[in-house]
Amino acid sequence: MPRYKATIQYDGTQFLGFQVQNEGRTVQEEFEKTLARINSNEHIEIFGAGRTDARVHALGQVVHFDMENSRPVEKLRFALDTQTPDDIRVTSLEEVADDFHSRFNPHIKTYEFRIDIARARSPFKRFYASHYSYPLDISRIERAIKDLEGTHDFTSFCASGTTVVDKVRTIYSADVVHDAANQELIFTFTGNGFLYKMIRIMVGTLLKIGNSRMEVDAIPGLLAKKNRDLAGPTAHPEGLYLKEIIYTEEN
Amino acid sequence: MPRYKATIQYDGTQFLGFQVQNEGRTVQEEFEKTLARINSNEHIEIFGAGRTDARVHALGQVVHFDMENSRPVEKLRFALDTQTPDDIRVTSLEEVADDFHSRFNPHIKTYEFRIDIARARSPFKRFYASHYSYPLDISRIERAIKDLEGTHDFTSFCASGTTVVDKVRTIYSADVVHDAANQELIFTFTGNGFLYKMIRIMVGTLLKIGNSRMEVDAIPGLLAKKNRDLAGPTAHPEGLYLKEIIYTEEN
Repeated sequence: MPRYKATIQYDGTQFLGFQVQNEGRTVQEEFEKTLARINSNEHIEIFGAGRTDARVHALGQVVHFDMENSRPVEKLRFALDTQTPDDIRVTSLEEVADDFHSRFNPHIKTYEFRIDIARARSPFKRFYASHYSYPLDISRIERAIKDLEGTHDFTSFCASGTTVVDKVRTIYSADVVHDAANQELIFTFTGNGFLYKMIRIMVGTLLKIGNSRMEVDAIPGLLAKKNRDLAGPTAHPEGLYLKEIIYTEEN
Repeated sequence: MPRYKATIQYDGTQFLGFQVQNEGRTVQEEFEKTLARINSNEHIEIFGAGRTDARVHALGQVVHFDMENSRPVEKLRFALDTQTPDDIRVTSLEEVADDFHSRFNPHIKTYEFRIDIARARSPFKRFYASHYSYPLDISRIERAIKDLEGTHDFTSFCASGTTVVDKVRTIYSADVVHDAANQELIFTFTGNGFLYKMIRIMVGTLLKIGNSRMEVDAIPGLLAKKNRDLAGPTAHPEGLYLKEIIYTEEN
């Protein structure tokens, strides 16, 4: 049975998240509905590389699924792209080895987090960036963010209540760019995996440092103490984008 | 009684337009509700420079209104900005002469029209740009658009059914930019006034020319014939932005 890997974008505003839940509209549910429609109403389950939360966006989420019959990939991509709702786009599709798994094959993930730093929040960014209107010394953020790079136990930056035991992750790069023309701060994190709400807690902590309510060199101590309560608040979901997933082994 | 001039932005997606109607949410209604709330529940009418349609956006709409008591302008701006709904932003406010009128004082208006020319429509632009996925020869649009500049009778580019008699308007500049990185075409029109749906009909006509379904030199003939039916279709409202209004006489 052929296996397909699809790269998709979605505007998370009107989703309760990626994964199917008991109540509410999800990306997985909408995608599976479309797949069934073009598969003689037979249900096909999809597997996503990352489980984005409500209001979180994706520029490059990856999903895989199996279909009974092999189909021309561009025809299948076009059918999925045009028949999924307008807030989901299927940017590419390929046939992959039948042991490929979007979540378990080794990969590198990149997330982006956008902050609207205009004094008054832009009506056009209210669903697409988190708003932060307090004073920020961006040079403090630029210095502190580098302490997140490397292999660390990120317990202090993981929402409590998670069932994950091993909280060691590697961040290959953590950067912040100040887009002065658009009055935005854009954070980018690339790593081998991220814990639940980890990006949002890192961003909330970096903003607290930028606002001088936390020491610029606080991060190594936070990592060492393994206590979520000591880090900053969780930044709002609408600023977060699952940007890109690169699989590091040949299929 | 002091008169105030406010410059506002709004995301038109969830509005039935600027002007109060019998049914549906409008910018005027929401702004007037907020004004009443900070004015002891006394109604204050506002007057907008342009009457944008449903789903049309504003980056620089201008409104004026009168209030019984003079107030510090920054305090008033802040109150209006924070108390209007999230899809309206009050970017600036000033006290003006009591004979200033947002609509009748001479002014120059600039509108922008954004087209998403990606093969598959971006989920993030579905409310903020019109989608056009057919082949376009942009050099044809660049040549044709210049024929719209100048003083003309724009009857052919005005929605039928309007009560306006004089359809002569002056367009000072009409330009198109191809933003290749974002896969967008951005049209900009500056003039002394625009007829009902005029920008959207001009854009629809220019796209038809770009798609080679109309001659590149068709516009002078269309203007001369004064017949709406001969021009191209009306482009969708979500690509349109009222960008800026400049009053040409001192207040």
